[in-house]
Amino acid sequence: MLELDIRGVSGSIIGEENGLNIQEEFEKYRTKIAEIITDLYKKKDTAGEGLQWMNLAYSQETSWYVKEYAALVENRFDNILILGIGGSALGGIAVTHALLHPYWNMLSKEERNGFPRIFFLDNIDPDQINGLLDILDLRKTLVNVITKSGDTTETMAQYMIIKDRLEKELDDDYRKNIIVTTDKKTGILRQISEQEGYKTFVVPDDIGGRFSVFTAVGLLPFTLVGINIDEIIDGLKDIDQALRNPDINENIAAQNALVHYLLDTKYGKNITVMMPYSDKLKYVADWFIQLWAESLGKSSTIDGNMIHTGPTPIKAIGATDQHSQMQLFNEGPNNKIINFIRVGEFDTTVEIPQIFQYTGIGYLGGKTMNDLMNAEADSTQASLIDYSRPTITIKMPKINGYYIAQLLYMLEMQTAIAGALYNVNTFNNPSVEQTRNYTYALMGRVGYEESANAIKDKILSV
Amino acid sequence: MLELDIRGVSGSIIGEENGLNIQEEFEKYRTKIAEIITDLYKKKDTAGEGLQWMNLAYSQETSWYVKEYAALVENRFDNILILGIGGSALGGIAVTHALLHPYWNMLSKEERNGFPRIFFLDNIDPDQINGLLDILDLRKTLVNVITKSGDTTETMAQYMIIKDRLEKELDDDYRKNIIVTTDKKTGILRQISEQEGYKTFVVPDDIGGRFSVFTAVGLLPFTLVGINIDEIIDGLKDIDQALRNPDINENIAAQNALVHYLLDTKYGKNITVMMPYSDKLKYVADWFIQLWAESLGKSSTIDGNMIHTGPTPIKAIGATDQHSQMQLFNEGPNNKIINFIRVGEFDTTVEIPQIFQYTGIGYLGGKTMNDLMNAEADSTQASLIDYSRPTITIKMPKINGYYIAQLLYMLEMQTAIAGALYNVNTFNNPSVEQTRNYTYALMGRVGYEESANAIKDKILSV
Repeated sequence: MLELDIRGVSGSIIGEENGLNIQEEFEKYRTKIAEIITDLYKKKDTAGEGLQWMNLAYSQETSWYVKEYAALVENRFDNILILGIGGSALGGIAVTHALLHPYWNMLSKEERNGFPRIFFLDNIDPDQINGLLDILDLRKTLVNVITKSGDTTETMAQYMIIKDRLEKELDDDYRKNIIVTTDKKTGILRQISEQEGYKTFVVPDDIGGRFSVFTAVGLLPFTLVGINIDEIIDGLKDIDQALRNPDINENIAAQNALVHYLLDTKYGKNITVMMPYSDKLKYVADWFIQLWAESLGKSSTIDGNMIHTGPTPIKAIGATDQHSQMQLFNEGPNNKIINFIRVGEFDTTVEIPQIFQYTGIGYLGGKTMNDLMNAEADSTQASLIDYSRPTITIKMPKINGYYIAQLLYMLEMQTAIAGALYNVNTFNNPSVEQTRNYTYALMGRVGYEESANAIKDKILSV
Repeated sequence: MLELDIRGVSGSIIGEENGLNIQEEFEKYRTKIAEIITDLYKKKDTAGEGLQWMNLAYSQETSWYVKEYAALVENRFDNILILGIGGSALGGIAVTHALLHPYWNMLSKEERNGFPRIFFLDNIDPDQINGLLDILDLRKTLVNVITKSGDTTETMAQYMIIKDRLEKELDDDYRKNIIVTTDKKTGILRQISEQEGYKTFVVPDDIGGRFSVFTAVGLLPFTLVGINIDEIIDGLKDIDQALRNPDINENIAAQNALVHYLLDTKYGKNITVMMPYSDKLKYVADWFIQLWAESLGKSSTIDGNMIHTGPTPIKAIGATDQHSQMQLFNEGPNNKIINFIRVGEFDTTVEIPQIFQYTGIGYLGGKTMNDLMNAEADSTQASLIDYSRPTITIKMPKINGYYIAQLLYMLEMQTAIAGALYNVNTFNNPSVEQTRNYTYALMGRVGYEESANAIKDKILSV
């Protein structure tokens, strides 16, 4: 099981000014935390609460559909191309990068056991799109368009471009190269899909993009590249069972939520650093950034005053960022909580050969890169302790489907509990809509003339 | 020429509580800024000041050596592999990603005009290293080991592993596959290189890793993959000439330094968001993070009190992160300065076809992705203005060697000036050494027994 070590935030280790009396705080928040957890599990089936992601461990339906389709198209495509942005892309990127060979897209088809390469187009940069079209044979590419609302400007523009190209290459057969993941009933993309006859998959109701990785949004691409999603579902079930426990002393998601909340609101640690000591987990940090930022970054009016909440999540990679951000984390303002993710056992080992024995680097010979990775993580934490900085370690026994599911789900649950502590609506993102309306206005969408007037004076680019 | 638009930090646009009276502040700091700039240019040739990077536009020597060597090995290698970490990797990654085809390593050799693929190994993750070794034919790979000190643990361990493998593949010929960029006289790697007979290049004195992109650290790999470094040098010269101007009203690096310094120290905007609206510039944000974090993240004792300075740089990519971090940037705590980098003209255009005209996405037809990218950037800035958040735009006419050099050099100069305003030593990184000593101790390096004792109680991983 995934483990959490929060000793590094304890006042007895980093000093009372910066650290918590953990047992005292757990005692103080025991009832509140139990209420929050009970409440989440009570409301999870209620429509409109945005909590349907808590049920994903127990629904076999998506797995079944996804596997059926994957079996059908086995060996038919060389590439999967995901069109999606934000929550429609970040989970897929995080999990495939964690579980596939680190240079998957550069392996031969044989080395990939016949499974396709996978590409995520999550931006609208024309040079990137043209670059991708240079290297993809669209005839051998399965395009998965992912947008919950069926209305996301960036994704729909990508879709229009790619659909047009596909049709030119394949005539009417192009329809077999497009699959769609969207809302089951509403949205333009649902409507178009039916008209066009695409194979479609569903983003269930009440699951926002940033909580959607274990729906067809993620499970479909994972299966298509050969990832065993049963392992993922098993991991989900086990961690969900563990996180149902309303006792703060036994619930790691609650512990981590509370610790972050207290360190932010009482000790000014308003920056959450996510720092995996693993290259494979580097995009988990990006996925977490959306989860934490969009869920907790909210404004509300309390007694007539506007309150702005939300710690700022940032990404660092161990050991790489010891040579980039660590100087600031150590000596700069003491406003950060550094979350290490450490891997118990890497898939492989690399031994450092015993050469140059009589030089200053001789000491490395005979050790492994695995030893070095561990020594660096230990050293970095020790150094942060010297500077009285709070640290937390999430321990992942191995990087596989089972534990990656546990990691992501634990962070989702931690976010839901933190949202309740901050007293915000964890599951909406109102400000994104304002920006979207401005974009509609600037692009001339009918019905957004008012936004066009509102934005006029604010365009500084002209 | 690169341009800067700082209207978005003005109190008249985002309100007096959050924004500056720009002209008043410029007037107030006019003398101070002039002194700082004059001082930097006066001290730039003095040994020990860490300012030799200010001379790189005017030294032809490195260009000459680099080109001579590149001509010598033309067509001989399929891959370049950079072993380096922090400042030895980040500039190379940023510039090659900006200037090469977005999927360079997946193009055929012909499409690359015979130039090699390029890989950066900037971590010690065993799975990543083994993964890379799976796909690289080392016999056709030129390995460039980069470490200024010649002593960086991560890089030296990588080197030992790769050297051993190369030797097994090529016998004595392996020496032709290794080139080294390090200090001209000192360090273990310099010593080993001479013993082994490697071709070497020099990291000049008084240039720290994060300011080294325009030395052989960057210029050598750039030339090897076919990037025209004369354009880069031209860009450097022109921007350096512009930034010599001690008048705050005319010097964009000084303006940006001052604005960031004032917004941090007087208005609590202690997070610097670097947000290029371009996929090609995404690693420029990572390069900037090291530059800004390591240079300004410092502690010092003033009148017996420990002071911790340094804004926290974070990365966001437009338009992608509108669907991830923007909710927090808009509605969360008003503690960020959002720096857009906008590109005047992309290399290519993608038109959105006029299809689905009578649906809700019909309005996109006939527009280009370039239009959409611009509309999204404008909308995002307008939305941030609605929420009274300070924004800055760096305008880059095109992404090419000339302007990328201007961008990086401007940010270096901005950092140097900001360091002087914060009154810190911009060019050292003392805390990195503490962590390094702990790692030496844990890995059993002779002479670090004392560190081993010091770290013992701080290892929480056991």
